[in-house]
Amino acid sequence: MNTVELKKLNSIYTDSGSVFHFIKNTDTDFLVFGECYISEILPGAIKAWKLHSLQTQNLTCIFGEIEVVTYDPSEGNDNGVSSFIINNNSKYSKIIIPPNIWYGFRNLSDHLSLILNITDIPHDPSESSKIAYDSSKIPFKW
Amino acid sequence: MNTVELKKLNSIYTDSGSVFHFIKNTDTDFLVFGECYISEILPGAIKAWKLHSLQTQNLTCIFGEIEVVTYDPSEGNDNGVSSFIINNNSKYSKIIIPPNIWYGFRNLSDHLSLILNITDIPHDPSESSKIAYDSSKIPFKW
Repeated sequence: MNTVELKKLNSIYTDSGSVFHFIKNTDTDFLVFGECYISEILPGAIKAWKLHSLQTQNLTCIFGEIEVVTYDPSEGNDNGVSSFIINNNSKYSKIIIPPNIWYGFRNLSDHLSLILNITDIPHDPSESSKIAYDSSKIPFKW
Repeated sequence: MNTVELKKLNSIYTDSGSVFHFIKNTDTDFLVFGECYISEILPGAIKAWKLHSLQTQNLTCIFGEIEVVTYDPSEGNDNGVSSFIINNNSKYSKIIIPPNIWYGFRNLSDHLSLILNITDIPHDPSESSKIAYDSSKIPFKW
C-alpha cells in the first residue's frame, strides 16, 4: 500500500504532566521497529524534501506544531500533494508515510517544535534521497 | 542482568534544528520493541515511584532536564539508590532500567521537560506497581 495516512493519537492528562501514546507493537498498522529518533525544527524553519525508497516513516509532533506536506509522484502534479497539521494538543496524531513519497516539514509554532519518528529500518543513506525545499520537481510552494 | 545503565547518545547539529539519535534495532543493547510513549513532566513535578516486574525501560530526556532516581531493592538501603541527570544537551543519554527496579523522575528545568520511553512490552497494569513518591519503602528523599 502506498497511501499516506493520518491517525489520531490519545493522550492522558495528569497533574504532573500528560502522557502521550505513540506506537505499540500491537497496533494493527505496526510493521517492525527499525529506528527511533527526534528532530528539532526551529521557528520559521522548513525541513524538506526527503524520500525513502524502502523505509516507512511513523511521525508525530510532541512539542509545538508542524505542517507535514507529502507528494506522491505516481499521482502527478494535480493530485499528488497533501498537507497535514500535527501538534501535541487537539491535533495530536501520527502520520504514516510509506516509501516513494516525498515529504517535508514546516514549523508552525513561534518556538521550537519536536518531531518524533519511528521507522521500520535503521537509517541507510543508500535508500534515501534529498532535494531542495524549493525544487521545481515538487508542485508545492512553502 | 539487573543493572541500571546510562549510555551517552549522539545528536547532529543542523541550522534548521538538531537531530537526536535514540534507538536502532542494530544497537547491541536493543531487546525488542514493545511500546513508545512520551511523558511530560511539569516544572517542580516529581513522577515516582514505579516498578515493572517484566518490562524494561529505555528512557531519555528530549526537552528540558530531568533527574532519574532508581532503587534496586535487592541491593538494600545502603547501596540500592542511584541518581542520573539527563538533558538534550551535554548530558544527552539513555537510561536502561531492567525489571524489578523502582524508578522515578524529577524535572530539574524551569519549564516543561519531556521524557521519551521505549519499552520491550506494551503497557500492562498487571506487571506494574506504583507507590507514593515519599514512601518510606525507598531510602531516598526527593
